[in-house]
Amino acid sequence: MRIAIDAMGGDNAPDEIISGALESIEFLSENDELILVGPRAIIEPKLPSSHRREGVISIVEAPEVIEMDEPPVESLRRKVKSSISVLAKLAKRGQTDAVISAGNTGACVAAFQMRMRNLPGVNRPGIAVVFPTFSGPVTICDVGANISCKPINLYQYAVMASMYSKYILGIENPRVGLVSIGSEEAKGNEVVKKTLELIRSDEKMNFIGNIEGREIFEGACDVAICEGFVGNVMLKITEGLVKGLFKAIKHELMQEKIRLAMKFKPIMIRIYKKYDYNEYGGAPLLGVNGTAMICHGSSKSMTIKNAILSSKKYYMGKINDKIVDYLSENPLSNGTNGEQGANGGKSEDKATGSI
Amino acid sequence: MRIAIDAMGGDNAPDEIISGALESIEFLSENDELILVGPRAIIEPKLPSSHRREGVISIVEAPEVIEMDEPPVESLRRKVKSSISVLAKLAKRGQTDAVISAGNTGACVAAFQMRMRNLPGVNRPGIAVVFPTFSGPVTICDVGANISCKPINLYQYAVMASMYSKYILGIENPRVGLVSIGSEEAKGNEVVKKTLELIRSDEKMNFIGNIEGREIFEGACDVAICEGFVGNVMLKITEGLVKGLFKAIKHELMQEKIRLAMKFKPIMIRIYKKYDYNEYGGAPLLGVNGTAMICHGSSKSMTIKNAILSSKKYYMGKINDKIVDYLSENPLSNGTNGEQGANGGKSEDKATGSI
Repeated sequence: MRIAIDAMGGDNAPDEIISGALESIEFLSENDELILVGPRAIIEPKLPSSHRREGVISIVEAPEVIEMDEPPVESLRRKVKSSISVLAKLAKRGQTDAVISAGNTGACVAAFQMRMRNLPGVNRPGIAVVFPTFSGPVTICDVGANISCKPINLYQYAVMASMYSKYILGIENPRVGLVSIGSEEAKGNEVVKKTLELIRSDEKMNFIGNIEGREIFEGACDVAICEGFVGNVMLKITEGLVKGLFKAIKHELMQEKIRLAMKFKPIMIRIYKKYDYNEYGGAPLLGVNGTAMICHGSSKSMTIKNAILSSKKYYMGKINDKIVDYLSENPLSNGTNGEQGANGGKSEDKATGSI
Repeated sequence: MRIAIDAMGGDNAPDEIISGALESIEFLSENDELILVGPRAIIEPKLPSSHRREGVISIVEAPEVIEMDEPPVESLRRKVKSSISVLAKLAKRGQTDAVISAGNTGACVAAFQMRMRNLPGVNRPGIAVVFPTFSGPVTICDVGANISCKPINLYQYAVMASMYSKYILGIENPRVGLVSIGSEEAKGNEVVKKTLELIRSDEKMNFIGNIEGREIFEGACDVAICEGFVGNVMLKITEGLVKGLFKAIKHELMQEKIRLAMKFKPIMIRIYKKYDYNEYGGAPLLGVNGTAMICHGSSKSMTIKNAILSSKKYYMGKINDKIVDYLSENPLSNGTNGEQGANGGKSEDKATGSI
């Protein structure tokens, strides 16, 4: 399998990206190949000569870089030789089996969607993030690819995230919840109410109805679906709160005896790592015709390594085939295919939230 | 000042409610009067005879109770003698200066809005919650009264929450942020983009533009405004995450030496209390023509006591006058008054999220 990685994506590129790629090698098989995409002059000196000789890692030249805060579609148009653009083109031409980037999320979504197109039966791709909760991992989709959703989008997220939960996380019959402001059926905004009805009509789905945000952490569901705006806010709130709480804990500990504080430090670090969703590796862009992982901008080598291994699991597990099969066997998805591919990243411009 | 409290509201009613009322007395002045609303037969035996004699606390009969999970408006129609209905009627008739309830949030919003009407210049009331973050308290509005907002609603939340932040929390020139999925101007859904433009046109407001969820915990703003759906999800996510994290910490500690774990326990409890927004007392329903506090369903006596003291601060500080003055002096609010009061809780039916 060939896995292409944006060497210039994220706040810690290229060093942490390249390290992550190198760290992943021992977990890959002999037939696997890593492709680092970026300026050769920067990447090559950072690769140990042994790897270059063995041909495990190759470089594909991409001289330009889209910065984290650039407007997605505009920058893609301007920088056709950016690492993200080149990555997407490799996927389009069948020159890689998976793409991974920790760069500008909006640009990734737009480029991957435009070049890779959507899976048959899927109207809009969605980014899924796995929250490692105390009660087990919960897959949340969408967290920023599709800001304002139609009910059919949310239904398809339910299907795709369920497949991910089942075949990647190993949860047998994932329980799907629709994020709302109360578990009662009548609660929610218009999109939620219509989606509830739509998903109910799929009897094969293990749909538990509306869930409240707090229930995500209480083991109520394995998959939580929501509009990209809501999912992105949830993601960011979680990130800020976890950081803030650990800061608060540190602050309180510093007021205790220093010896006591030092004893708790390793415990705190252990918990932080266990419940940090970044450690889970990349977030799959579900619904594109290929394997695409988007990583947090602050990704370190470990996240990149995990994303590489996740993308392999996704590709080898033929998750996309399972999604297409489910949607084609299910009458709900009929008649919606006309829209697929037609939205090639266009409406994502300036709207996509970073993860 | 007269403060009416729903003795039957919340999971811990009536005992914790009555205790909270009693605990507040030492912080009130001689002229203050507490009115407990609920079934006299249940409340009276729980009051120490001394208080009954002194006339500090009186009881207003309300034989019915709206349960926490009942559909708001329907139950208000059916149970006209419920504690929430009676509370709202006391406010309408001018028989109390403030109302407080930890009961069904949707029913409270609908009843208070219908009976108390809106402040001049306010189209829709919003619930404001104070998040005690590491960087100071942040007032978030709306967290569930108005599920889908118009830009003018969000602008008015910015005005009202700023007044609350300034005069109740003592923040001199509160920085207002609009919750979105990125700080860049072009990010967000349609409502956010239009609201950004609208608020920008008020030069008097200390508006810092879009903020991401995580920035709320990083001290970026003092006031964060959002649609009720988003705010309610944020509130619930925070609640679930804090609980989940502390559960995780407890779990990890239990795997350590018991002596070490025990030393950590008081520190954890201290932090939990410090950062638990419930401890802040009630959440004001900003925009109604009166003083109304809605408390979390799980409120204990301390929250009720704090809500009583907050409502006094709100009333004595004439916050509503300041809101009306600001809106009347500001051209943005002109021409929108026609809507006020006309929405008497109707659209809240079945849509309001609990806090």
